[in-house]
Amino acid sequence: MPVYNFAAGPATLPNEVITQIQQELPSINGSGMSILEISHRTPMFDDIINTAKQDLRDLLAIPDNYEIMFFQGGGTGQFAAVPLNLATEHHRIALLDSGHWAARASDEAANLGLTVDTLASTKDTHYDRLPQLTASLPTDTYDYLHITTNNTIEGTAYRDLPQTNGTKLIGDMSSNIMAQRYNVADFDLIFAGVQKNLGPAGVTLVIVKKDLIKPVEHIPNILNYSLFAKKNSMPNTPPVFAIYATGLTLKWLKKQGGVDEMQQRNEKKASLLYDFLDNSKLFRSTVIAPDRSLTNVPFVTGDPELDKAVIADLTDNGLLNLKGHRSVGGLRASLYNAMPFEGVQALVNELYKFEKNH
Amino acid sequence: MPVYNFAAGPATLPNEVITQIQQELPSINGSGMSILEISHRTPMFDDIINTAKQDLRDLLAIPDNYEIMFFQGGGTGQFAAVPLNLATEHHRIALLDSGHWAARASDEAANLGLTVDTLASTKDTHYDRLPQLTASLPTDTYDYLHITTNNTIEGTAYRDLPQTNGTKLIGDMSSNIMAQRYNVADFDLIFAGVQKNLGPAGVTLVIVKKDLIKPVEHIPNILNYSLFAKKNSMPNTPPVFAIYATGLTLKWLKKQGGVDEMQQRNEKKASLLYDFLDNSKLFRSTVIAPDRSLTNVPFVTGDPELDKAVIADLTDNGLLNLKGHRSVGGLRASLYNAMPFEGVQALVNELYKFEKNH
Repeated sequence: MPVYNFAAGPATLPNEVITQIQQELPSINGSGMSILEISHRTPMFDDIINTAKQDLRDLLAIPDNYEIMFFQGGGTGQFAAVPLNLATEHHRIALLDSGHWAARASDEAANLGLTVDTLASTKDTHYDRLPQLTASLPTDTYDYLHITTNNTIEGTAYRDLPQTNGTKLIGDMSSNIMAQRYNVADFDLIFAGVQKNLGPAGVTLVIVKKDLIKPVEHIPNILNYSLFAKKNSMPNTPPVFAIYATGLTLKWLKKQGGVDEMQQRNEKKASLLYDFLDNSKLFRSTVIAPDRSLTNVPFVTGDPELDKAVIADLTDNGLLNLKGHRSVGGLRASLYNAMPFEGVQALVNELYKFEKNH
Repeated sequence: MPVYNFAAGPATLPNEVITQIQQELPSINGSGMSILEISHRTPMFDDIINTAKQDLRDLLAIPDNYEIMFFQGGGTGQFAAVPLNLATEHHRIALLDSGHWAARASDEAANLGLTVDTLASTKDTHYDRLPQLTASLPTDTYDYLHITTNNTIEGTAYRDLPQTNGTKLIGDMSSNIMAQRYNVADFDLIFAGVQKNLGPAGVTLVIVKKDLIKPVEHIPNILNYSLFAKKNSMPNTPPVFAIYATGLTLKWLKKQGGVDEMQQRNEKKASLLYDFLDNSKLFRSTVIAPDRSLTNVPFVTGDPELDKAVIADLTDNGLLNLKGHRSVGGLRASLYNAMPFEGVQALVNELYKFEKNH
């Protein structure tokens, strides 16, 4: 039985990418060595990392005045790296509390000694919508405003970005990078763990305006933007395999038609599920319509026991990892780039069947 | 032509491990999903990480009062994590300067605000031997003494550990973990990037006495021992694939007979090469006999141009990545666990032929 993996991340990858990795595993580029054995200090790996950077630049239309870097440590690493590298003037940042990951970013910045002003929060409505700025941001007060472009757990995503009135904008794009189109130039820095839309867990992408990269002392080397920019992301051994696999996924994305094509497909996939939910008498989306995510769709019956029965039924039918995050409960379908339309069709069909037989 | 990869890391892995990864890549444990797509919040991954921990415990005879953790960021990450977590009383550490990686550890500790006392150094003799303590360590002065058990670049390795007189001992074991036997209980903390003897780049092992793990504030979460210990190395998404592949290598090591068997094989491999070098009129080891590493063997002709010709000849014969580090020059053969005896035989044969025809 073919299965569809709706996990929130690490998540499903394109079959073509898995197959290519499998084929190349014993010997990369006819070298007689596995990619798992290749030193990063080789022309072959230079080519892999530089090609991945160029493909990122092409796919996201990253302007020349932005640097592209690869880090270890995931989004959680960047929750530390961004304040340590960028919050050096005011030691004060602004944040929109859109859910779990925004709160984690806030906690880590505070842990590292910054003042964090949460300018808006939708905690009171269980993050069923995005927080909105109600007043103009003061000038020259904050080192930056942090937003989570897509909230993996709560299922909301920004289409229109907040007006920052000149304050720098930082986007945690971990769960919808390349799944929907953003204008990179609207951000001063974007970061994203690759393990949702772009590759296996183990590498994190940072795209940042070059003029923001400045030497900073007394911070760990593995979080140091200036050092990583100078050393082409390799001051020490990088996660070779994760960068290689991400590179293959980027090639796949290009072959599919790029980000605009993926967004169209993702809109089609998400609409199929949201339309079903909006017309269902048993299931409902937990998010208000205008703020819904394309990539993460939480939904509930309202009865936790019934939710469990639905998850069990879906699992029996090869529709996997649909349990919602404990903070929202119910179910969650993650519809990243590599989830085919057929997977969402199979999910909706099974939900429909379950509802009919209920 | 079969090739032998003598790279210093990332480095050669057992063929059996590569083959197993290749076979399991499309579907792990009959799940229909690739290990690259598996969420870390699954019983399957719990089993993978817990099995790897138990195998580490068995192979190294790690006592129960030591915690085992997996981090991202390599040895360089631990150059920061160790002082941030452990140098909290005196803010002063002692260090033996045995070469490049010891110096990097020293620089990072100083960068993070510690006082670093280099108690001995062999820089004056180009690190051709290990630094030795000439006086007893003062009590209650240092948070710990840092040593590099094996110096990847310079080709030296500790057999007898320094007497610390009660000061805690930290071992950077990145390049000879499980290649030779150490008694874990002689250390307070051991760390090692896995990309030399244990797996692909992307995960770093920390073995530390449980009673040294204490909550520390104002340090990045991704370097926080207390947090990682509490969350079984998964406060955030771990490098799933790298941990999985390391787990397979640990199983392979057990099947081979464990660390003592590997040490015997490594002694046999290293002796073959050192004996050749000591009897050669063209080549010589750069390290004094008692301090020689089992895993990294630098050697030179004394003529940089001739060294280049040797490297080219070896490369033509499928003996790869033998160029020495720029700081030592010449050649370097890394003979990690996965390098078969036949590879060293092939290397020595070709060096012999080169010398004869020279």
